[in-house]
Amino acid sequence: MIDKLISKIKKTQAPIVVGLDPMLKFIPEQIQQKAFAEYGETLQGAGEAIWQYNKEIIDAIYDVVPAVKPQIAMYEQFGLEGVKAFARTVEYCKSRDLVVIGDIKRGDIGSTSEAYAVGHLGRVQVGSQRFYGFDEDFATINPYMGTDAVAPFVKVCQEEKKGLFILAKTSNPSSGEFQDRLIDGRPLYEWVGEKVAQWGSGFVGENGYSYVGAVVGTTYPEQGKILRKILPRNYILVPGYGAQGAKGADLVHFFNEDGLGAIVNSSRGIIAAWQQEKYREFGPERFAEASRQAVLDMQEDIKQALENR
Amino acid sequence: MIDKLISKIKKTQAPIVVGLDPMLKFIPEQIQQKAFAEYGETLQGAGEAIWQYNKEIIDAIYDVVPAVKPQIAMYEQFGLEGVKAFARTVEYCKSRDLVVIGDIKRGDIGSTSEAYAVGHLGRVQVGSQRFYGFDEDFATINPYMGTDAVAPFVKVCQEEKKGLFILAKTSNPSSGEFQDRLIDGRPLYEWVGEKVAQWGSGFVGENGYSYVGAVVGTTYPEQGKILRKILPRNYILVPGYGAQGAKGADLVHFFNEDGLGAIVNSSRGIIAAWQQEKYREFGPERFAEASRQAVLDMQEDIKQALENR
Repeated sequence: MIDKLISKIKKTQAPIVVGLDPMLKFIPEQIQQKAFAEYGETLQGAGEAIWQYNKEIIDAIYDVVPAVKPQIAMYEQFGLEGVKAFARTVEYCKSRDLVVIGDIKRGDIGSTSEAYAVGHLGRVQVGSQRFYGFDEDFATINPYMGTDAVAPFVKVCQEEKKGLFILAKTSNPSSGEFQDRLIDGRPLYEWVGEKVAQWGSGFVGENGYSYVGAVVGTTYPEQGKILRKILPRNYILVPGYGAQGAKGADLVHFFNEDGLGAIVNSSRGIIAAWQQEKYREFGPERFAEASRQAVLDMQEDIKQALENR
Repeated sequence: MIDKLISKIKKTQAPIVVGLDPMLKFIPEQIQQKAFAEYGETLQGAGEAIWQYNKEIIDAIYDVVPAVKPQIAMYEQFGLEGVKAFARTVEYCKSRDLVVIGDIKRGDIGSTSEAYAVGHLGRVQVGSQRFYGFDEDFATINPYMGTDAVAPFVKVCQEEKKGLFILAKTSNPSSGEFQDRLIDGRPLYEWVGEKVAQWGSGFVGENGYSYVGAVVGTTYPEQGKILRKILPRNYILVPGYGAQGAKGADLVHFFNEDGLGAIVNSSRGIIAAWQQEKYREFGPERFAEASRQAVLDMQEDIKQALENR
C-alpha cells in the first residue's frame, strides 16, 4: 500500500491528503435541509448529511489527490449513525481508488491492539469465513503503550500489505508537555521516532520506503528536521497545514531530496474552503468545486516551496 | 458519576469492574449456533452472538458488581455490526443500573478530542436538538498529546457529571518502554500522574474523590504505590487481574486506607470463567453462572487481601 500511495503521489504530483473531518457547521444548508427533511433533526439525519457532503467532495477531488484521511472522531460524535457514515465514506473512497488513511489513533495492550488492527485493517474470523471490518488502507496509531501495543498492527499490515502512521510529534499546542521532555538528553519524540524506524525496518516497499511511517505536526518544523533524519526511509504524515497555521514553506524539511517521504494533510482548509473569503465566489452550492480549487492551490504552494528550498 | 460509582462499590462491597471484552472463542456453541442460524456466518451473526453473550452475563452479575468496562476494540473488530453490539451493550448495562466505563483509550488534538468526548460522554448538537451518541459514564483516555487533548474530555465530563480514567502506567509487558523512562530523575508515568492530579483537581465529588482518575496496571505494584501517593484523591482503574497474572495480594497498595480509591478490572477471568478448569462444573450452558461465581471469588480474594494488608 505504501507503493500505491507513492505511485499516486507521483501521478497526481500532490503529496496531499484531504482530511475528511466533517462538522455540521461546514455543511452547506441545502445538504443539511435535504437530510433533515428525510430523516428529521436526528443522529440519522446528521449521518446522512455528513455522507452526502463527503460524497460531493470526494467526487470533486478524487483525481487530484492520492489519499484521504477521515478522522473517525468526527463520525463517532454522532454515535452509531456517525460510524455508519464513516464506513460508507471509507468504502466510497476506495471505489474511487483513493488511498484511505483511517485517522483512528488507536493503541492498547497486545490482544486489544490485535482486535483494533483486525477491525480497521485486517479480516476477522467468523466461523469458517473471514471479513473485513472497516478496511482502511493505513491507520494512525498511538505509541504510549510501547512495542507490544504496536506489534499486532504491524503483523496485520504485513499480512494485508497495509500501513501505519505512528504518532511521534503531534501538531497541537501542548504536544510538548510529554513529547518534548528530555530522556537521556533527547526528547521523548526522538525515542519514539527511533522505535518507529525499528518497527518498520523489516517491512519495506518496492520504492524503498517502509510501510510504517510517523505523524509529525507541520507546526513543529525544527522537530520535523530531526525526525526526518531519524526516519530517512519512513513516510511522514504531516498534519497542521492551513487551518492550524502552517504554510508550504514551513514543511519543506519534511521531504527528502527525492521530493518524497512526506504527505501533508489539510482538513477544514479544503473541505470547508467555501466558507473562506478566498473561495467565496463559489458559494454554498458549489462548495465541492471550492474544495477542488483549494487542493490545487495547496499543491501549487507546496510545489513552489519545494522548488525554492 | 464518581459518587454513584463509589456508592455502588460500597453497596456491593466489590471494588470490581467486569471487562466486557467478547471474543468469539469465549462464546459457548449454543449462542454462536443460534446467532449464525439466524444471520449466517457473517459480521451481523457475530454481532448478534456477542450481544446475546453479553446480555446473559450482564443479567447474571448486575447485582454483585458496580460497573462494567466494555473494551470497544473487541467490538470494532467486527466493523459496524460490532459497534452496534457495543451500543446495545452500553444501553442495556445502563438499564441494569451498572456504571459503564467505555474502554476507548481515545485522545487527539483539541477539536478532535472534543468530538470524541461529545460522542462517548456528551451530547451532540443536530439542528435544534441535542443527542447522546454512545453515552458511557466514564471513558479511558490516552495522555500522549498533552493537556489540550485531555481538556475537552474534562469539559464535557463537568457538563455531564461523568468521569475519566487516564492512562498512566499500563499493564502490558512493554509499557515501560516509554512510560518508565526518566525525565528529570522521575519516570514519565509519574509526570503523567502529576498531570492527572492537576486535570482532576477542580472537579471533585461529594466523597472527596475527583471525577478524573488514572489507569495503572496491577502488574506493576511498585509503580502503583507511587501513583497512589501522587493521586491520593483520584480513583485508580487497575487492569491486569486474573488472566494477566495478578492476584488480590498484588493490588492492596492501589487502595487507600479507607478501602476506596481503586477499582479492579477482570475481563476474560470472569466472562470466560466457564472455560477454566475451576468452573468446569457449570458447563457451557451455565456459562453466565460461572461468571457470577468468578466475580464472587474475586470479591473474596480482594477482601481477604485488604484485610491481611
